[in-house]
Amino acid sequence: MRQLGRTERNIVKILLAQRDSTIGDFVGNVAIVREAMGRAGAAGADVVAFPELFLPGYPPRDLVEKPSFIAANEHALRDVAALATDVAIVIGFIERNESGAGKRLFNSVAVCERGRVAAVARKSLLPTYDVFDEGRHFEPATTASVVTIAGKRVGLSICEDAWNAPEFWRSRNYSRDPIREQAEQGVDFFLNVSASPYSVGRGELRVRMFREHARTHGKPLLFVNLVGGNDELLFDGRSLVVDSAGALRFEGRAFAADDLLVDLGAMPPAREPFARADEEEVLDALVMGTRDYMRKCGFTRAVVGLSGGIDSSVVAAIAADAIGAANVLGVSMPSRYSSKGSLEDARALADALGIGYRVVPIDKIFQAYLETLAPSLEGRPPDTTEENVQARIRGNVLMALSNKFGHLVLTTGNKSELAVGYCTLYGDMSGGLALISDVPKTLVYALGRALNRRRPSIPENVFTKAPSAELRPNQTDQDSLPPYDALDQILERYVEKREPIDQILAQGFDEKWVRDTIARVERNEYKRKQAAPGLRVTSKAFGLGWRMPIAQKFREG
Amino acid sequence: MRQLGRTERNIVKILLAQRDSTIGDFVGNVAIVREAMGRAGAAGADVVAFPELFLPGYPPRDLVEKPSFIAANEHALRDVAALATDVAIVIGFIERNESGAGKRLFNSVAVCERGRVAAVARKSLLPTYDVFDEGRHFEPATTASVVTIAGKRVGLSICEDAWNAPEFWRSRNYSRDPIREQAEQGVDFFLNVSASPYSVGRGELRVRMFREHARTHGKPLLFVNLVGGNDELLFDGRSLVVDSAGALRFEGRAFAADDLLVDLGAMPPAREPFARADEEEVLDALVMGTRDYMRKCGFTRAVVGLSGGIDSSVVAAIAADAIGAANVLGVSMPSRYSSKGSLEDARALADALGIGYRVVPIDKIFQAYLETLAPSLEGRPPDTTEENVQARIRGNVLMALSNKFGHLVLTTGNKSELAVGYCTLYGDMSGGLALISDVPKTLVYALGRALNRRRPSIPENVFTKAPSAELRPNQTDQDSLPPYDALDQILERYVEKREPIDQILAQGFDEKWVRDTIARVERNEYKRKQAAPGLRVTSKAFGLGWRMPIAQKFREG
Repeated sequence: MRQLGRTERNIVKILLAQRDSTIGDFVGNVAIVREAMGRAGAAGADVVAFPELFLPGYPPRDLVEKPSFIAANEHALRDVAALATDVAIVIGFIERNESGAGKRLFNSVAVCERGRVAAVARKSLLPTYDVFDEGRHFEPATTASVVTIAGKRVGLSICEDAWNAPEFWRSRNYSRDPIREQAEQGVDFFLNVSASPYSVGRGELRVRMFREHARTHGKPLLFVNLVGGNDELLFDGRSLVVDSAGALRFEGRAFAADDLLVDLGAMPPAREPFARADEEEVLDALVMGTRDYMRKCGFTRAVVGLSGGIDSSVVAAIAADAIGAANVLGVSMPSRYSSKGSLEDARALADALGIGYRVVPIDKIFQAYLETLAPSLEGRPPDTTEENVQARIRGNVLMALSNKFGHLVLTTGNKSELAVGYCTLYGDMSGGLALISDVPKTLVYALGRALNRRRPSIPENVFTKAPSAELRPNQTDQDSLPPYDALDQILERYVEKREPIDQILAQGFDEKWVRDTIARVERNEYKRKQAAPGLRVTSKAFGLGWRMPIAQKFREG
Repeated sequence: MRQLGRTERNIVKILLAQRDSTIGDFVGNVAIVREAMGRAGAAGADVVAFPELFLPGYPPRDLVEKPSFIAANEHALRDVAALATDVAIVIGFIERNESGAGKRLFNSVAVCERGRVAAVARKSLLPTYDVFDEGRHFEPATTASVVTIAGKRVGLSICEDAWNAPEFWRSRNYSRDPIREQAEQGVDFFLNVSASPYSVGRGELRVRMFREHARTHGKPLLFVNLVGGNDELLFDGRSLVVDSAGALRFEGRAFAADDLLVDLGAMPPAREPFARADEEEVLDALVMGTRDYMRKCGFTRAVVGLSGGIDSSVVAAIAADAIGAANVLGVSMPSRYSSKGSLEDARALADALGIGYRVVPIDKIFQAYLETLAPSLEGRPPDTTEENVQARIRGNVLMALSNKFGHLVLTTGNKSELAVGYCTLYGDMSGGLALISDVPKTLVYALGRALNRRRPSIPENVFTKAPSAELRPNQTDQDSLPPYDALDQILERYVEKREPIDQILAQGFDEKWVRDTIARVERNEYKRKQAAPGLRVTSKAFGLGWRMPIAQKFREG
């Protein structure tokens, strides 16, 4: 990479601008750069660094196949470069590959100085697994970049480039370690610009990994991460700085924009990484994700079906936190099988949250279906058919409110249900955002407790009564499923950790529970295919990162 | 690659076994190999070649992340190798990458001789675009393989390896050309084993491309392709052989299993590729895809909502062809807005096809919704809300029949509707297979004509009346959409060809039509996210190969 002519100085002040950009909103994203530049100037920074692909937004997915999208991204980069007069800008953008072979684009970072793009670094390691599709559009760089910024030699890397050090990983996805390659070229410090998505435990892993890099190579490392939600992906921010000894010196806020003003000549004392209970972290993640999804899709109001159970209670409470109670409408849709307690619990929740509330009894509609369908159902005994009809009536009612008033329907199914197909397509699965579809049932309860610690709203009864879909008399979830404690452990091993059935059985779970659970996961792929987008909070969510064929015959369960 | 000890002979007889394997059905797939081996033995073949990843099925997607899946695939390969006593077997399987770096697997082909795996060739060029995700799981080979089979030097390549010749393509996805690399090592002939999916025009493209390879290198080329449907992907077979001068000598059947018994010493005369009208080809593709999806998912019966329009008529006729008229149930669900003619057309169609038929009037249910919802809708005037309620009632009725009797619901929406969101989520979009969701409306009409040429069943009136959703009085599709002729041309340019808006406008379409159409495509991503899997017949279907963010602000329209 080209050396920049700027005079070397002893002290460099860098602003790590942890921000939330919107995919395809080039005008808005440049405005965020402009705002941060104002803060940088006031703080006397020499450099401002933004996250990976900040200009187009991350992940832009197949939008990058539109020539007009790439052109708009280049136009935005020129606008940003023009802002880099006194203060340098480091920012992620999409670069065309002009070589004539390979993928047409690079995932790149521009270094802008004196009104122009002075240097570019390209990403070498392109994650193409789980939720990531970078190999689909980008050509990998074959060399690691060291660039000169504000007189310093900077090992400038992009996200995954820092995730393949042999010192840290037992098995590796790639053969190269771009950080080591940079170290061998000689650097003053490392700067990693990322769009590294959140999942439980990811923050601590990053701290450990970046500390290891700094220790190994004896140089400070700065990490600036994206924050905000883009469809299923939640970015937690938590930008950080470790010194050359591997001590943590800065850590940015989680799930909110932040400025880290880093003076490499005068860093604050070492600190321990901020740690919280999983459920507190997940709660913040979901609030941010809900707010961001709605904002970026242009919704201001949401509607939630309130059954009086824990799932819908938690969803309503998170929605109220995310967009304001006045913008949330809870709807109870009792049928002949609904208990009086459920209706009371739902109403109490709505009152406590201060959200709108409505009761729409569905029995008249259900009766009309039963009468209309009777000749076609040929006198067959009731089964899940009639249960599903009720769930689908509720879906239709919520969608009618959505269509008429512009609310986003929030679905309330949790990950345990979605895994085993204990949910109704076009029924309770109907909606625009599946807020807790990556949250196992046991964690939903913990979220409920955490919500009540922040502000009591969910009635105690919701935690203690047996979970039930209330679609037939005296139904409980445990008529059909193992106890949620066991179910969630089995699912975590099977879905998240990809453990084979033998290894799960060796843990001592009831064999029938294990086999039934796995068989249910296997045969419900078709439901998940049509599920609403969900917010990812675990290392393996159903959705983008779970790509199973439907028409297939492999069975473990 | 290792040389095999077999004595060279002047004549080699190869059976190209164009077959349909099922993903994860290792026992069934080995049984197909055994059946083909019997035919090969009887025909005096020296070698039998099967398609790419034939043992695990293609595409196995994330199933390959299960250790038990890889182990079962290895076990099946041992079973196949044991069959290769007198006749060699060339077959696609998943190979572990034991190198410790990079992706854990290779997309490989085994050459089995004398009861064991004698050689392995690995895929170099891994398609990771459109519907393909091979870079997600497989490590590319870095060299092209020449193996000795039955005494001949064979350039053994896998699908995409043959799709990057600089002689043929103006722009290239990769820098290497494995076919040329093989030619440079010296080969007697090329053998390309593939799972190359169908789209309109793909067959002719393949013939041209393979002829070019043979001509360029002066060697014969044999191509064995998968046949059958796996979720969205349809494989058309059409295996072929070109001689060293580039003349086509063999061409396998389209959309059906076939045996090509190739004696390289005595080939039949050159022939022209078989060509048919697009609609005839697409019809065969959809019949095969419907049959295969249902069989592989374990369904024997299907239900279709019959509106009396062209879409549902074509879907019912294809279903009757695919699984037998006796296994198809047509259901008319008239409302207050349905015309008498529509009901008559639906009944006439069902009679002509000989499928089951039922009328389930939905007005009583619709009335119950209207009364139940009235207090919540606050007297707002009717709009699409009430239209969607009706569509969702129909979806619920069909799903109830499906739940009670085990029919697969076939959705009837076409590509034009899905593109512009002229369809109702959880309404007419409800179902397990979206049979014509990649067929533009104008092509749906052509399919209808082609079906009637084969066997008259669709009433003439269905072709001539104005298309209407019949969800409000006197509604027609053209109240909301441009004429389908123009719409489909705009969509083909925008969706399939990725043309920028300026280029489309330059064709002279009405500007408002173009902008409205593109804007509708852009803002209906959320509906497509929850669509049923559809059968892909064009070069760009919504589904696997169309990966757009929902929460994004880039707008061309």
